[in-house]
Amino acid sequence: MPEIKQVKRPGRIKALCLAMSVSLAAGGNAVAAGVSWEDIVNDAATTEDVLAYGIGPKAQRWSPMDAINKDNVKRLLPAWSFSFGDEKQRGQESQALVHDGTIYVTGSYSRLFAIDARTGERKWAYTYRLPDDIRPCCDVVNRGAAIFGDLIYFGTLDAAIVALNKDTGKVVWKKKFENHKAGYTMTGAPTLVKDQKTGKVLLIHGSSGDEFGVIGRLYARDPMTGEEVWMRPFVEGHMGRLNGEESTPTGDPDAPSWPDDPGTETGKVEAWSHGGGAPWQSASFDVETNTIIIGAGNPAPWNTWKRTSPGGNPQDYDNLYTSGQVGVDPTTGEVKWFYQHTPNDAWDFSGNNELVLFEYDENGETIKATAHADRNGFFYVVNREDGGFIRGFPFVDNITWATHIDPETGRPVEVEGQRPPLPAEGEKRGASIEVSPPFLGGKNWNPMAYSQDTGLFYLGANHWKEDYWTEEVTYTEGNAYLGQGFRIKKMYQDHVGVLRAVDPVKGEIVWSHKERLPLWAGVLATAGGLVFTGTGDGYLKAFDAESGEELWKFQTGSGIISCPITWEMDGEQYIGVASGYGGAVPLWGGDMADLTKPVSQGGSFWVFKIPKN
Amino acid sequence: MPEIKQVKRPGRIKALCLAMSVSLAAGGNAVAAGVSWEDIVNDAATTEDVLAYGIGPKAQRWSPMDAINKDNVKRLLPAWSFSFGDEKQRGQESQALVHDGTIYVTGSYSRLFAIDARTGERKWAYTYRLPDDIRPCCDVVNRGAAIFGDLIYFGTLDAAIVALNKDTGKVVWKKKFENHKAGYTMTGAPTLVKDQKTGKVLLIHGSSGDEFGVIGRLYARDPMTGEEVWMRPFVEGHMGRLNGEESTPTGDPDAPSWPDDPGTETGKVEAWSHGGGAPWQSASFDVETNTIIIGAGNPAPWNTWKRTSPGGNPQDYDNLYTSGQVGVDPTTGEVKWFYQHTPNDAWDFSGNNELVLFEYDENGETIKATAHADRNGFFYVVNREDGGFIRGFPFVDNITWATHIDPETGRPVEVEGQRPPLPAEGEKRGASIEVSPPFLGGKNWNPMAYSQDTGLFYLGANHWKEDYWTEEVTYTEGNAYLGQGFRIKKMYQDHVGVLRAVDPVKGEIVWSHKERLPLWAGVLATAGGLVFTGTGDGYLKAFDAESGEELWKFQTGSGIISCPITWEMDGEQYIGVASGYGGAVPLWGGDMADLTKPVSQGGSFWVFKIPKN
Repeated sequence: MPEIKQVKRPGRIKALCLAMSVSLAAGGNAVAAGVSWEDIVNDAATTEDVLAYGIGPKAQRWSPMDAINKDNVKRLLPAWSFSFGDEKQRGQESQALVHDGTIYVTGSYSRLFAIDARTGERKWAYTYRLPDDIRPCCDVVNRGAAIFGDLIYFGTLDAAIVALNKDTGKVVWKKKFENHKAGYTMTGAPTLVKDQKTGKVLLIHGSSGDEFGVIGRLYARDPMTGEEVWMRPFVEGHMGRLNGEESTPTGDPDAPSWPDDPGTETGKVEAWSHGGGAPWQSASFDVETNTIIIGAGNPAPWNTWKRTSPGGNPQDYDNLYTSGQVGVDPTTGEVKWFYQHTPNDAWDFSGNNELVLFEYDENGETIKATAHADRNGFFYVVNREDGGFIRGFPFVDNITWATHIDPETGRPVEVEGQRPPLPAEGEKRGASIEVSPPFLGGKNWNPMAYSQDTGLFYLGANHWKEDYWTEEVTYTEGNAYLGQGFRIKKMYQDHVGVLRAVDPVKGEIVWSHKERLPLWAGVLATAGGLVFTGTGDGYLKAFDAESGEELWKFQTGSGIISCPITWEMDGEQYIGVASGYGGAVPLWGGDMADLTKPVSQGGSFWVFKIPKN
Repeated sequence: MPEIKQVKRPGRIKALCLAMSVSLAAGGNAVAAGVSWEDIVNDAATTEDVLAYGIGPKAQRWSPMDAINKDNVKRLLPAWSFSFGDEKQRGQESQALVHDGTIYVTGSYSRLFAIDARTGERKWAYTYRLPDDIRPCCDVVNRGAAIFGDLIYFGTLDAAIVALNKDTGKVVWKKKFENHKAGYTMTGAPTLVKDQKTGKVLLIHGSSGDEFGVIGRLYARDPMTGEEVWMRPFVEGHMGRLNGEESTPTGDPDAPSWPDDPGTETGKVEAWSHGGGAPWQSASFDVETNTIIIGAGNPAPWNTWKRTSPGGNPQDYDNLYTSGQVGVDPTTGEVKWFYQHTPNDAWDFSGNNELVLFEYDENGETIKATAHADRNGFFYVVNREDGGFIRGFPFVDNITWATHIDPETGRPVEVEGQRPPLPAEGEKRGASIEVSPPFLGGKNWNPMAYSQDTGLFYLGANHWKEDYWTEEVTYTEGNAYLGQGFRIKKMYQDHVGVLRAVDPVKGEIVWSHKERLPLWAGVLATAGGLVFTGTGDGYLKAFDAESGEELWKFQTGSGIISCPITWEMDGEQYIGVASGYGGAVPLWGGDMADLTKPVSQGGSFWVFKIPKN
């Protein structure tokens, strides 16, 4: 790991000094003159800025603003638009940040733009120089930046993370953390947490690459220098790192949740060495319990039998810590708790979808929970103090792989015959079965919002299914490591996307709004009684948070698959969203790729407000 | 010429039948069921559609609509936007057409989009498959389409013209008219004219390529089949074609306006064989005199001495029919009249800028004139019945190459020392001189508008200058044929672009509005007392036609270098414009390229209206 063992070179010292020159050293680590931890932790409550992916450490995507509301949203119109340019388009999945009159938005192909929030004028643009041999599974996307002090951070498609001066766009430090030729990438937004024990602010980010058979890893860094503090792999038995030294293995060093294979060097099956679990989305942070909470990716390869002993039962090999949610200690990077949504995931359901932290009262008691709408079609409420299962219920129609989540054990009750079977003797491909949700999920990465007013979650789900079959697979570095084939198909003729309001306590769908194309955009809920999201066919839309009625839409010219934000400026409320179609659907979506073919690619940021008079 | 001599192949017959199936044969040629000649000739007066580049054969870019006006334009806001997609951006110079609820707009890289005018939804998109070795001098732009019957036409960067069914986007016919490897391209919008003698409607288009030393040609085609009717070269002594046969040479067959050279096969200097004059913009059409009126390009190479006898005087070799305006007979393709703005053009001023047809009263007489703002910095009023010079006056500051246009002869009175001198003995490069306007012109291609209310022309001019020097040059096919080097520089610190209102009768500048970046967008004037144009830094702007006051602007995210249009739909007035920066300035603009570097590329179409309530 070059960033640990290297001797301090002049270049690095210079970067350090640059960072220090704009910051003040205090306590355990540098405290920034610009954006402080207090700013970040209060993000959801402060209306003038948007400082974190998810809008604050709880990732609720909730705004207390109500200047734009049910009554006047029909008058919402663009204030300006900004083109990302460069003859680069494809998927724009970014959530923008807003600070001190500047919008920071990442673009496809590892770009970051600083835009004047009032005029739409470019302040600076940074284009990371990507090598030719990057291996992003699901388009050249980036989901956003993080900001702290005078630095702005984002990940790159070749598995590096970059810190830029927020005012100049100049690189302050850059860390290449993994080998992109093996399939490592970074697409998620990094996040800041403050270790409540040490007082240190840490920059947290994960890796991507589960489709290439790499071990998923979560990293904590010194935000001022980029130096790694710890690294945590999400495959049981793999070794973590702390302050540049081996720390502890993840879980049991013998990794009983993965089959043994005495014929290999490791003594474990091939898959264990390439086991996935990548935390490729963004961490939430529970200040009260001092816990980083993040989803872990699917086990690699997709083929369940490669992760089960020969002739064995997949349910005997859970393949920890994949396809579940993890609570991590910020001080050491140790796993504090783990709850698995899909044990021995045979469907690429992953567990990556966002973890939203919320509280609710039950029998006079305040329950501190996470909410999570999994690709597997179930909505989970989990106790975030210990990872204890509270409830799970379907949020999409026609789930075929499991009948329900056992309320006692918290484990799915699987339907027999829904794990794609091994090929018959002499065949290279197994019999095809029909499964729903398909691997693209009842909901994918596109984060949901929680309304503090209605107590409901709002999420962009999809109704679709797939033909699924196993294929022979052996690991070779840098090649797809799936062992499974698929074709995504329609479930209904009239819609694929379905925006839903979900009651996390009652375990009910409150309302549904259908969309012809798959939904792939994040959601924003506001105290104006509104829910905002984007559609594949280019609209930013606003809905009544209580009834689900569509109140407003605007056509931005390319599909929207990003996360809308809102902020206040000069006494007016603004809505911002990136437009630009791409992501996994047009690449992997089978019939859905055909459906979305007429959608133009794009690359722009849009700002809306209610015109005066 | 393949399109003349070829035997009818099945493919071609099929195309013919396709065209016929949607049309009715009548008189000399097919008359369309869709857009008729009457529709086109009345384009400026009918508000529901925009059917021709320039908005009607007079190319006045004038609309009688006043629903959007001085009083309410401040409330103008986007109705929708459409992204051209395809990870292709660069310059979007197109003027859109509107017909029957559909917008037809061409994009960079030879693309054409049909968009639902109400929703912004893509109806169809056509991407012409370009070869790798195209040679557009000044970006991969296209300036617009033409429509007639059920066909929509546009030119491609490899010197072809394509006719598509307007409802399906399917190719009906396609004609490759010149060799793109030699430098021929097509960037201008084709136009329809109706020969008043024969009653035939003709599709008129020119070629581009003066910077590569190709002979500029104007073509007339049967709009239903694409078959060539005639071709007219714009270098004196070159042979025209009519109905597939040689017709007449252009001008004097001995071409006395070009020097002889007994040492060559042609008996003329090398330049004569490669002489430029390309009519790369769009023709206007004078119905009353049955005359096609179009600008002819610069002579090739740029180096004046290559087009002057050794030791001779450039003013003795006018290099007809370059850098002037030409009246052409639609029946035969013969030159009816010619007026030259820049005899023996040493500055690449070209004569291509649009010819706007207008009338005015003088001493009780109605004068039928053309108006033309030349790259050379002078505004010309010419009698369009015979090409007779009426007046010429500067429309930009600090013209250095000529003091004025001689009112008697109509010829510029040149300033000595303003033709870049030959290299000194033994040198390969001549001494550098400073010239204004530079070759990018006091105004470039971006067409002006004429207000029938104010009687003024509104044009996007630029204040800049250049260092200019000669260089050795010998023709080699497909390579730049300039013989001149340059660096464009600022004239003023506070602005480059200057939007000006010009009185064509008084010969005066009525008002000026400065812009920091070069102006490269067309202008639209309306009966609402408004003038619309776009700016390099991304704004669509509206000005008071009388005072020049800026009344409104909207930031579209990329620079605007296209032509705004307006139309009426469902009782409301709409404004449409393409956004996407590029064109000649960032490629050739020297200091201007630096100035425009922060402008993002883009590719989108924007529609604006005044929101209800």
